[in-house]
Order: sequence, then structure tokens, then C-alpha cells
Amino acid sequence: MAQFQFFDDTTSPAQGPAHIAKLRAELSRRGFDGFIIPRADEHQGEYVPRSAERLSWLTGFAGSAGTAVILQDKAALVVDGRYTVQAAEQVDTSVITPVQLADQTPEDWITANLPEGGVLAYDPWLHTSDGLKRLEKAVQRAGGKLAPVDMNLVDVIWIDRPAPPQAPVRPHPLDHAGETSEAKLERIRRKMTEAKLDALVISDPHNLAWAFNLRGGDVGYTPLPLGYAVVPKTGRATLFFDPAKITNEAGDAVGDLAEFAPMTSFQSALDALGQKGGKVRIDSTTGAVALIRRIEAAGGTVDVGADPIALMKAVKNNAEIAGSRTAHLRDGVAVARFLAWLDREAPKGQLTEIDVVEALEASRVETGALKNISFPSISGAGPNAALPHYRVTSSSNRKLELNQIFLIDSGAQYEDGTTDITRTIIVGEPSPEMKDRFTRVLQGHIAIARAVFPKGTTGAQIDAFARKPLWEAGLDFDHGTGHGIGSYLSVHEGPQRIAKTGHTPLEIGMMLSNEPGFYKAGEYGIRIENLILVEPRTIPGGDREMFGFETLTFTPIDLRLVEPSIMNAHEIAWLNTYHAAVREKIAPHLDAETRAWLENATKPIA
Amino acid sequence: MAQFQFFDDTTSPAQGPAHIAKLRAELSRRGFDGFIIPRADEHQGEYVPRSAERLSWLTGFAGSAGTAVILQDKAALVVDGRYTVQAAEQVDTSVITPVQLADQTPEDWITANLPEGGVLAYDPWLHTSDGLKRLEKAVQRAGGKLAPVDMNLVDVIWIDRPAPPQAPVRPHPLDHAGETSEAKLERIRRKMTEAKLDALVISDPHNLAWAFNLRGGDVGYTPLPLGYAVVPKTGRATLFFDPAKITNEAGDAVGDLAEFAPMTSFQSALDALGQKGGKVRIDSTTGAVALIRRIEAAGGTVDVGADPIALMKAVKNNAEIAGSRTAHLRDGVAVARFLAWLDREAPKGQLTEIDVVEALEASRVETGALKNISFPSISGAGPNAALPHYRVTSSSNRKLELNQIFLIDSGAQYEDGTTDITRTIIVGEPSPEMKDRFTRVLQGHIAIARAVFPKGTTGAQIDAFARKPLWEAGLDFDHGTGHGIGSYLSVHEGPQRIAKTGHTPLEIGMMLSNEPGFYKAGEYGIRIENLILVEPRTIPGGDREMFGFETLTFTPIDLRLVEPSIMNAHEIAWLNTYHAAVREKIAPHLDAETRAWLENATKPIA
Repeated sequence: MAQFQFFDDTTSPAQGPAHIAKLRAELSRRGFDGFIIPRADEHQGEYVPRSAERLSWLTGFAGSAGTAVILQDKAALVVDGRYTVQAAEQVDTSVITPVQLADQTPEDWITANLPEGGVLAYDPWLHTSDGLKRLEKAVQRAGGKLAPVDMNLVDVIWIDRPAPPQAPVRPHPLDHAGETSEAKLERIRRKMTEAKLDALVISDPHNLAWAFNLRGGDVGYTPLPLGYAVVPKTGRATLFFDPAKITNEAGDAVGDLAEFAPMTSFQSALDALGQKGGKVRIDSTTGAVALIRRIEAAGGTVDVGADPIALMKAVKNNAEIAGSRTAHLRDGVAVARFLAWLDREAPKGQLTEIDVVEALEASRVETGALKNISFPSISGAGPNAALPHYRVTSSSNRKLELNQIFLIDSGAQYEDGTTDITRTIIVGEPSPEMKDRFTRVLQGHIAIARAVFPKGTTGAQIDAFARKPLWEAGLDFDHGTGHGIGSYLSVHEGPQRIAKTGHTPLEIGMMLSNEPGFYKAGEYGIRIENLILVEPRTIPGGDREMFGFETLTFTPIDLRLVEPSIMNAHEIAWLNTYHAAVREKIAPHLDAETRAWLENATKPIA
Repeated sequence: MAQFQFFDDTTSPAQGPAHIAKLRAELSRRGFDGFIIPRADEHQGEYVPRSAERLSWLTGFAGSAGTAVILQDKAALVVDGRYTVQAAEQVDTSVITPVQLADQTPEDWITANLPEGGVLAYDPWLHTSDGLKRLEKAVQRAGGKLAPVDMNLVDVIWIDRPAPPQAPVRPHPLDHAGETSEAKLERIRRKMTEAKLDALVISDPHNLAWAFNLRGGDVGYTPLPLGYAVVPKTGRATLFFDPAKITNEAGDAVGDLAEFAPMTSFQSALDALGQKGGKVRIDSTTGAVALIRRIEAAGGTVDVGADPIALMKAVKNNAEIAGSRTAHLRDGVAVARFLAWLDREAPKGQLTEIDVVEALEASRVETGALKNISFPSISGAGPNAALPHYRVTSSSNRKLELNQIFLIDSGAQYEDGTTDITRTIIVGEPSPEMKDRFTRVLQGHIAIARAVFPKGTTGAQIDAFARKPLWEAGLDFDHGTGHGIGSYLSVHEGPQRIAKTGHTPLEIGMMLSNEPGFYKAGEYGIRIENLILVEPRTIPGGDREMFGFETLTFTPIDLRLVEPSIMNAHEIAWLNTYHAAVREKIAPHLDAETRAWLENATKPIA
């Protein structure tokens, strides 16, 4: 029995017809022609509380990203490439049409479908200023207009909507945080002074958690305390939480730096902020337009821009880096034990995807340090591995079959660090095509791991290094190569990423994933993921300040899937050096049987 | 004597103190605290008429990009990395401080320096809507405000400002254009219908020239007719030009598709457009805010977005591609003759950078087809080659010395196509370091030439392929790898480019340059540039629609600078195949002496 991951289908396509009909009746009653439902909460979070799962309740689609637009005579669910298959399975396509984001954005769909003169309603707590501008343009192009609603129209009809979560807010110890909240606030205020700000509203709970060294448990997989903070130029900050969540320890830890206030007083605090008349920074990526309007209506000036905390949080300090190294060794031991077990058991032909998730979770629980998994494990056998964001349920559960690929993408939340690792395993014998594809993915992974690049380089600039070996074979993968990662925070953290959209320069101390893949629909999927840390590099004879990556994850890469004949000497040397490091670091912590497995799994190739 | 390129210093640092003082007096008179002078004309052109060279007149800085901000007590000239050295030399730094764009944008400088409550004046004809938004934000952060002026404040004080140009507007023949203006307008109107537009204002004269198959001569190096067009959803378009420029042939060619109107009636035409009340597209990259305001003031709705013509123009049709191939063969012959001459003459030690420009121009004139050079040749000997955008003048002119590198970046305007090519030559013997650097630049060039990538890939994604061999040595270059190119139009054409900022997907038929470089300040510079064409690629076993590049330029790459020992087999094969193609295509058109030179210059290496 898994403790952290569940396998029941929580939604059904049957939800769509009933709930959408209800919503349409509500639209008619209010004289609206449509409503837009992003998969967002008030903080634009990736993991949202159940009370904010409006998209899933309305349509049945349970993915982590998507937008529905409901008009009176048609409805669309726009999802990205990760969710094409899942969307088609989870919604009733007779009432709502899945649309591929690459073909048509929600805005494109609105421009094409909103009737001339039509009024599209939206919830101003669920859209950022940039998002709303795109929406305004789309509605304008359609010849219609937008109308904000005071209460979300889904909430109006969702009778049994769960209450907002009330998990306790607790301090994150200084040994792990590595910097006092006082020092962090000083740095934040320096940035505020540079930007001539009078106040900063922290709308991203990750930033709030980092700045005040607090953690909570309001959403799945990330120890987030949902709430807001207002940081004035001088004086005490105010932290807005449901009072039921505040613990004495949190109060003691925050001390004089901030006072706590109930969420119910947040809107009047925004009014007061506006009345003071200074310049208030609202985060462009997580700040709702409702915040902006409230402050502006009270006479304040809003400066929409980056919350400076996001970039500070992305650059890990020495304690966080040390914590992550420790967490990765602990996790590496747990994963090695698990992989050794998998190699013994899988060929017997009885294991299911769920069995594997349970075994991996159990191995991590055995470390005695597991706080949570960092996201629901992606455990895909055969064709299910071809779905990059597959989530196993009781109804989708497959057996691991002989001569098929099995992919497991998982991570752990330890108090000293968050992990995220993917390994692709062959059960039995791989086909030559599988080996070719796996090796190309590995070559892409190695190209990132070995990359050296000048200061100022963004993830967007190096992303294609991971794709080149696949491109040369006429292949590619439809997701980014890497995302940032938190320190006992979200497994997906910005602003840096290795992807077409990764426009933040990489800085020393940033942590990212390195996870190229390849997916053959209906047959198999491959992904190899380690976490990496940006570090300085000295190159003799060079004239630039150069950076490279240190790999943090220590787990064997399945050699049975490697085709050395298409690799060059640098690539083979990297793999052998990596495996030697895995052996050296992990073997001392293993039982004899697992150690023997590891020796074999990490033997040098030529 | 060169016919198209001139070598006099046209500006002097002494201009700055007098002109800036005059401007400050004008500011005082009008109650302004500052004025911003971008290096832009009303069309945001790269090459601007002399009447729009306000930045150069005011400060002495004659580069092709930069922005001055003049306040009462301080002034800044913000330039990018290309112009750091030139700006410091061309302006009087006691009155205006050169600022590096990478350190501080004009907006950053304004935020830091505009006094609280200060009023910054600007000319609404010289700023786009996006540009103005950034400016507004900067001024707001400084606690100041912006004020538009009716007449540019530099024009007010620039007594002997040249009159706007009046070069004749002539038709561009259909054999070269490859598509009638009628067919182009039909495609443009389809795009307008998709975007629900009632009218399109063409503010970019390149787009106007392309759409109506017209060419002019109002600015240097690009056969541009400066003017505007208004294209309504149905009915005739209106072309706004100075009537003195219209030729009978242009009138005949345009026929019933459009009527000509004088520039003096343009503003009232915008009023009429606004009064009609429909939705008018203004190009986001070239449309001045003055246009937007005029239309909105008259009651119209402005939709700021991409002029759809830009992308159509970037994708060359078969006639344009065939024309470019012919132009490149012609140009290749001229450049081969020139390079053979250079190899004979340069070691004698008497040639100057200007001699070389004149010889190259003469060789192109000899083709009998040269309409103009496509930009002022960059002819850099030794340390001057280290300035990527160096422009030789009588005072900067250097001799080509033995054992130094010489770099020549040049291009031609032929009626069938525009060319752009850079070659780096060693006079005498290179040092091992020069060979290493040249070879790394060549490896980057080859990585682009050989790249295969899926449909949808942008130039930003592949830009680092050209940098990787340099990065591995701790080196880099500070410009993009490639830009788009026009068909008998601008040598720099968007929207596609191979650079960090190249976010337009590459499409079959797009032409670009491939020009990585390396620059060692005070010593030497290297750049290798060919033009390339996006073409489809079939890769057996692949599952994606793949593209690659055809190289259009056929000119030897200096083998004396190549170090084969650091190249891999693919790279050597590419170079040998390329040189074989150069021989095959160019040799038949050469005299015996040049042919012998070419045979030697293109011999296979191992």
C-alpha cells in the first residue's frame, strides 16, 4: 500500500455533460456568452488544493495544465502535447472538444469562436495581468468583450466543493535554509530599493515560504503554506494565512520580522496599501489581476514585474547545496535498492506499474527521512511509457512485460532537499531500435551534462544540445530538457529552465533537471533524468567566465540499452566516469546483494 | 575610386558639445527635463535617410544602432557591444557618456537618472508602441513623466538639416519578384480576414516594396522607396509617397491595385481610417505610436501586431530562390577574382583597407549587374578586424601587414538577389592560436550548415551550435550567428534570425546568413559567412518533418587558417565537399590565372 500516491480514477468523463450544462444555465442567468476556466488557483500554482480543482470538476480532465472555454453552443479544452491522449480519454468529447495548444491557444480559439458582441466572463483571481492582456486582445479580435465576475461561476454551481486546506505552517530549520529570514528580507529590500518600490506583494506561496523560512502542507507533494505576504519598504511585513494554520513555532520563528493576519483581512490590507499611494510590485507570473485592480482602485500605483524573490530562491546557497547532495545520496541508495529488486522481479512477469510505485515508495520510506514524494511517480510499462506525463491508475495499470521498456520518473521530498530522477529499464532484451533511441537520448543527456557555456547563457540556448542526436535521426521529443527544482519546495521551480522558453541566464548555484526523452506512441518511451547544479569552470586559454554542470543524482543508467558503437570517446568516458562515481558514493551504503547488482550495473563499457 | 562606398569621417566629436547645448536650451525653453533620441526614422529603418540622422548630428556617433538620452545635467549614449569602441571614439565623452547596452538599457539609465518629477520629451514618430511602453515604465519608476512633441526637438535646432530624399520609385520586374502584386495582396487579405482586420497600415517600406513589387533609392544600400500604404479589407490600396518620386512605370505597374497619394495627405487618411471605425493593424516592430494615436483619436480601433507581410516576404518563392542562386554565382566569380588578386598583392605589404574595398567593388562592378553594394564593406586589417562592425575611414585606414589577419565582410545588390559574404584571410603565416580560433569558428559554421532540425525550430534553438566549439575553449562571440536577407531588398531582414532572440520558426524558403566569429581585441578578428536557404530534408527512419540548409555562397574558405587535427571526419568532409562545389560552379567562369588560384584554394584536406 502506498502512503503518498493513490491510484483511483478521481474523475469521470460523465462529469462534463452535467456540470457544463449547469454552468451554461448560470451563464444564461447572468447574461454571459461564455466563461474561461484555467487550471489555476489564486497563486497560479502547479499543484493546487482540491478546492481549486475547478477544471477537473467541470470537465473530468485531471491534468496539471489546461484551459477550458465554455460557450453556449460549443466548448473547448486546450491542452499541451503532454496531455493530448489523456484529455481525449478523460472528457466527454461530445460536449467539450480537446484542442492541441500547438495548433490553437485558448486565445486563438476564443478569437475564432466567440460570437461578435459576445461577453466572455472570467475570474480575476485566476488570471495574471499578462494573461488577461492576451485574453483581451483575443476577445477584441472576435468583436466581443470581457467581464470579470465577483465569484467564480464554477464555485457558484459546485455545491460540494471542498473547503480550503488548513495544514499547519511550520518553520524550515536554518541548517537547511542556510540563510536567516532577516538576511533574506534585507536582500529583498535592496532589490526593492533598486526598483524604487514602496511595497512588494508576495503572491507566490513558494516565494513566501522561502523568504520567511516556513513550510506548510496545503497542496500535494510540495510543502507549501498557501497565503500572501505584504512587504513594505521598511517595518514589519504582514503574512496572510488562515489563522487555523499558524503554529506557535512558526510565530516564534518569524518573530519581529512580520505579523500574522487572517486571510479575511487581505483585501482591506490591499486597499490600505493603495491608499498609502506608493509603488507596489505585483509579480507578473503569479499575481492575479484582482490584486492589481484592488490596489489601483484604492489609489495605489502597481508595478507589474518579477517578484525578486524568485531569482534569489533559484540560486541555492551552500547549506541548500550540501543538503541536496546529502538528499541525493540518501535517495540514490533507496533507488539502487529499488532498481536491484526490479531487475530481480520484473522478468518474472508479474509486476504491475502500481506494484513498482509501491516498491519505490517503500524503499524511500525505509530511509526514515521521506516527508513526501515530490510528485506522483510516472510508472509506465511498454506503450504507457510513451506518455511523458502518464499517471498510473487502477484502470490504466499494466504489467511489465518481457522485452518491453519500463520508465519510472519519481522524486522525494526530504527536509534537506527535493529529488527528481527518471530511469528507463529494459525488462528482458531490447530491440536494436530501442538501443539506438536510448543511446541518442543518452547522448543528449551527456551533451547537457558536459556542456560548458559563458556566463549569461540561458537554458534556451543549450536546450538543442540535448536534441541534436535525435534530430540527426529525424526524431525529437515534445517537452523541455530541464526545469529548476526547489530546496524542500516545488519539484518544478522557475525562473530558469533548459527549454525553448528558458530565457533566464543560468547562474552558479542554480539547480535544474537534465531529462531528454524519446517517445514512440503505442510502443515505448525513454527518458533519462538527473539533477544538475550550475558551477564555475576554468578553461585555460579562455577569455570568458565559463560555467558548467555538476551532476547531483547517482543512479546507474541501464547499460543493456546502450549501443556504444554510435557514441564517441567523450561520451563513453563520461558514462564510465559517472558510473564509477555512482559506485563510489552509493555502494558503501548497500547490502551485499544490492552492492553486487550495482557493481554489474556500473561496469565500464568500451 | 569607389563608386558606392565613401571613406570620409562624416561626423566629429566636436559636434556634441555645441549641438547638445542647443538642445538643452530648447528643452529649457519648453519646460522639459530631457529628450530621447533613438537612431530611428519614422519607419524604424536600419538604413535611414540623411534627414533622419539625428543621433549622428547631435552626438557625432555614426553607428547603425544606439539611443541618446539628454538630460540637463547629464547625457548618455547607449550602444550595443558592436559599437563600444566606436562610440567612445566618435563622441565627446565630456558631454555625453557612452553606456553599454548589456550593462544598462536606455530605460535602466532613465530610471536611474531622470529626476523625480522630471518630464522626458519624445518624438512619437520614432517610437513603437512596445518601445513606448518600456519607456513609460522606466519613467514611471523614476517618478517622472513622458511628453510627446509635435516636432522633433533636434529638427527644431538642426538648421541645415537635409531635405527628405526623392529617389524615383520603379517597378521590380515579375521575373525577379516571382509573384504578382495582385496575388500578394490576395494572400495579405486572407491573413487580414483571419485576424478580422478592416485595414492594414504598412509602415515598413520593405514590406511596401515587396507587396507592390516596387523599388526605390531613398536610403543607402537598400533599394527602398520610403512611404506608407493603407490596405483596406476590400477595394484599392493607397500608397503614400512624395509625388516627385512616382514614375510612370510605377504607376503602370501598380495599375488598379492602388492609388498614389502625396505624403502630405497621410495624416488625414489616418483620420479617415479612424472615422470609419473598423479594426486597423499597425505593425508592432515598425509602426510609430503617432500612427496609433492618430487613428485612435479619430475613433478607430488599433490592433498592434505583426504586419503579415514580413513573414510572407521572408519565405522566398522559386523565382527569388533561382535569382539568388544566379546572383550568388555571379558574385562568387567577382569575389574569386578579388581574392586571387588579394593573395597576389597583399604580401607585398602596400595594400590598405580602402584599396581592398575599392578592388572588391571594382570586381563586382565588372559583372555589369551591380546596382549597389548591400552595405558598407567591413574591411579590417589586424586589430581592426577585431571590431565586428568596423567601417574604414581615411583616418582609420590601415595597411594589410604580413602575418596578420584580414577580414572582409561585404555584399552586393543585384536585381536578382542580394548577397552578403565574409571571408577571413591570412596575409603571410598564421600563428597556431589564429589557426585554432579560425578552425573553431569554421566548426561552428559547419555545425549550422550541416544542422538538421524539425519543422517549428527557431533560429534561437540552433544558435549555440555555432558557439559550442568556441565555448569548449572558453571563448565566444558577441553577435548573432545569422540574420535574414532580402531579395533585392535589405541585407538584414526579419523576422527570422539565428540568434538568442530569433523566435520565428524557420520555414522552407527562408534565407539567412551563417556567420559565427571570434574577436581578440587589439589583435585580430575572424568571421566566416555564407548565405543559407532552409530546405526540406528526408531522414529514413525518422518520424518528424525535418529541415536543413542549402549553402548559397560559393567562395573558398582560407585553408591556410584551418587546423585539420581538431576537426572530426564529418567536418572535414563538409569542407572538402563545399570546396569541390565552389570549384565546379565558379571555375568555368574564371580566367586561367584566377582558375589556377581557385584550384589551389579549394584543394581537399585530410
